[in-house]
Amino acid sequence: MRIFLYSLATILGVSLHAQEGQSPTNQDSLFLRAIYNEALSEGEAYENLRTLTKDIGHRLSGSNSAAQAMEWGAEVMRGYGADDVRIMPVMVPHWTRGTTAVSEAILSEGIKRPLHITALGGSIGTAGNDPIQARVIAVKHLAELDTMPRELTEGSIVLFNRPMNPVLINTGSAYGGAYDQRGNGASAAAAVGAIGALVRSLTHALDTLPHTGAMKYAESIPRIPAAAISTVDASWLANMIKENPHLEVSLQMDCEAFEDVEQGNVIGEWIGSELPHEIITLGGHLDSWDIGEGAHDDGAGVVHTLEVLRLFKAIGYQPRRTLRFVLFINEENGNRGGITYAEQAALEMENSTIVHLAALESDAGGFVPRGFRIDANDEITKLMRTWTDLFDPYNIHQFRRGGAGVDISPLKNLEPRPTLVGLSPDGQRYFDFHHSAQDIFENVHKRELELGAATFAAAVLLLDQHLPSPKP
Amino acid sequence: MRIFLYSLATILGVSLHAQEGQSPTNQDSLFLRAIYNEALSEGEAYENLRTLTKDIGHRLSGSNSAAQAMEWGAEVMRGYGADDVRIMPVMVPHWTRGTTAVSEAILSEGIKRPLHITALGGSIGTAGNDPIQARVIAVKHLAELDTMPRELTEGSIVLFNRPMNPVLINTGSAYGGAYDQRGNGASAAAAVGAIGALVRSLTHALDTLPHTGAMKYAESIPRIPAAAISTVDASWLANMIKENPHLEVSLQMDCEAFEDVEQGNVIGEWIGSELPHEIITLGGHLDSWDIGEGAHDDGAGVVHTLEVLRLFKAIGYQPRRTLRFVLFINEENGNRGGITYAEQAALEMENSTIVHLAALESDAGGFVPRGFRIDANDEITKLMRTWTDLFDPYNIHQFRRGGAGVDISPLKNLEPRPTLVGLSPDGQRYFDFHHSAQDIFENVHKRELELGAATFAAAVLLLDQHLPSPKP
Repeated sequence: MRIFLYSLATILGVSLHAQEGQSPTNQDSLFLRAIYNEALSEGEAYENLRTLTKDIGHRLSGSNSAAQAMEWGAEVMRGYGADDVRIMPVMVPHWTRGTTAVSEAILSEGIKRPLHITALGGSIGTAGNDPIQARVIAVKHLAELDTMPRELTEGSIVLFNRPMNPVLINTGSAYGGAYDQRGNGASAAAAVGAIGALVRSLTHALDTLPHTGAMKYAESIPRIPAAAISTVDASWLANMIKENPHLEVSLQMDCEAFEDVEQGNVIGEWIGSELPHEIITLGGHLDSWDIGEGAHDDGAGVVHTLEVLRLFKAIGYQPRRTLRFVLFINEENGNRGGITYAEQAALEMENSTIVHLAALESDAGGFVPRGFRIDANDEITKLMRTWTDLFDPYNIHQFRRGGAGVDISPLKNLEPRPTLVGLSPDGQRYFDFHHSAQDIFENVHKRELELGAATFAAAVLLLDQHLPSPKP
Repeated sequence: MRIFLYSLATILGVSLHAQEGQSPTNQDSLFLRAIYNEALSEGEAYENLRTLTKDIGHRLSGSNSAAQAMEWGAEVMRGYGADDVRIMPVMVPHWTRGTTAVSEAILSEGIKRPLHITALGGSIGTAGNDPIQARVIAVKHLAELDTMPRELTEGSIVLFNRPMNPVLINTGSAYGGAYDQRGNGASAAAAVGAIGALVRSLTHALDTLPHTGAMKYAESIPRIPAAAISTVDASWLANMIKENPHLEVSLQMDCEAFEDVEQGNVIGEWIGSELPHEIITLGGHLDSWDIGEGAHDDGAGVVHTLEVLRLFKAIGYQPRRTLRFVLFINEENGNRGGITYAEQAALEMENSTIVHLAALESDAGGFVPRGFRIDANDEITKLMRTWTDLFDPYNIHQFRRGGAGVDISPLKNLEPRPTLVGLSPDGQRYFDFHHSAQDIFENVHKRELELGAATFAAAVLLLDQHLPSPKP
């Protein structure tokens, strides 16, 4: 591939000199074709994902498997020829789901219907790991709780049952619109005297899979156990409550929080040939929830990141800027990896001539890529939108603003502010699997994953070629 | 929904008068939002697909289930309020796969390895339905056969083993590039004396599923049996031949062709309010291959078509032109439905003031929609490309020329030539399922199917609103 690329460049007489702030060139077009060809014919992203998901498995921050994944990631980076590979230590939370998460609707004396639930990440267990049992009340909005008589809410278990809005085309927006139930529902319920919370799983799918995810407790409100309940069970339960307002449910969980643990971000560096003090960071997060295999979230981003390194070596691309390949830790329940990375970046910029020029993130799944989410100033957003014709043959059309990614978002505080870019795959299927037992390797499509890796690589290359250096 | 739409139109003061040849209006934007909202919140495409694939099942032309599907399609159209529903009779081929399709590689005395095969559509069976056995030779291109010594090809079974090209982004192009092996391989093999043909399945996936599809025999060349072989088996067999050039395989099939049968296109009509003599046809094909359930190919196109009728009624849209909802018969092995429809259209235009203005087809699967394939003159192609901003919120970006669809393609011969438009869903997964036992309901995604239906409806509405009438 290397030979093909250079010979074509020579034939066409194109310059190998970058043009900062300029529209794409013939050379860019050749690079992109080489990247996509390599990814689709010799790609290793899919087999890397198999190793990460099947040999290592899920990998919640603080777990042994997360530590194993760090070692594996560093090893792959070394194998692909990074100039330097290191671990940036990060203290991460250590929470365990335990072995018990049981909830039942008490239909009548001795007749119970089990509900499909799983603990929300960060929840406390039930006291003494014993079951609690109480009347269940259903709400669609947190604010409804404040309008209810205290005798209804006191001692109850609250079911938060607002579905994700199906008419929003962007499923991420629908997720965002329902998220408060999971993030803040438990404390809202506890504030009116409830003793437990069940939160409708954040997915459009009607099925019996509970979807976990982070929740947080508000300060100075009692902490109560909170679980995700499948959409089918949530709808069923809400209907049952209408028929029987005194319906009780039980809840038993033995999840538990421990002392923080030292793990870290895995960082591979490739020194730039022309502007080595200008850093372009790219990454995904290595940690995942502890059910399923973290295949889309965010095994895909991890192997996308590793594949960029491999692809550039394979096609003979020599980056002008220094590339940092980062496998972040703890995106799911704390974002400590992203926060630490930004803190260290700020220190670097204080103490050296290093500038963090841009950061790219892949954390929206391994689905067919549609484009990019851009957090940048008008000038650079406009520059990136000159890439539309270049990307059209690869079915990449979205150059939308905002929401580049959680791990890179703390870099916004740097001065000058780096350009942040997120890979944006198709989102229609994402929440079918997200944070559930179905986020497994088998639900990732090989070509879609490869197209994602190539698109991520293409964006890194184009930013490396065309981003203007900061004004001195 | 109707109330919402009209009231919004009133508030904004937009005109409900169409603007032919003009860019889209605020009114169009409101119609599109109403269509997508209705499809995503109250859509019936998915449940219709369940009925078609699960209650009726696969439905090869000439089969009882194809006849059942015709009845069902007509009934749904009537239920959705078409002004008129009828069957346009079409004589279709009647071929049956039989119950036996066995192929084995003879590894040594008494040791055989079964190969995953299925008959290609239209193939003859093996003589007397008995097994044949012969040395197998592998080629990647039909033309290689002509360069081989006759003693090698004579009496052999030929394995056509050229994979679909993985680097082509458009999987349809990769399919087209490998298609000659399935369409013409048997006769090319017979022309050099071979007695059977095995054709590598047309899919990127490496698995053990054989994918069937139409083949045809050239005139005045002996007819030999031809089967699809899974990609895994084809690769394995080609490697085995390298090790053992005398390797033999057996082949036994009892497929059979019968007399043509009368079935037909199901046609529902909705008379236009302003220009009833101008026809816009939209459809998919009702027949499918006889393995799997014809879910993506083309159950999706069938339920997309039915859903357009339902959506327009639900949002209160009154078409200006006459809409013809057509469930074509026999796309898979003859295209007799499409040919007959075009013949009848030509007669109509000769004998009345009716003009076939446009035809739209959905026959590329139920995946997330990406845009349209346009067979139209420059003026109308340009007109459709003014829709880009209108469709951007729905992630529809492709307005590409060529390949609108097989069923509507015979309409190209009409004068004036109608505008032909194909719905273009994402194609990365399509050939995983295409013509195989995995083309089943479970492999269609509800939201993606609904988005396809809405996008198809949006295109019909915009053409109805903006296509210029033919010059007198």
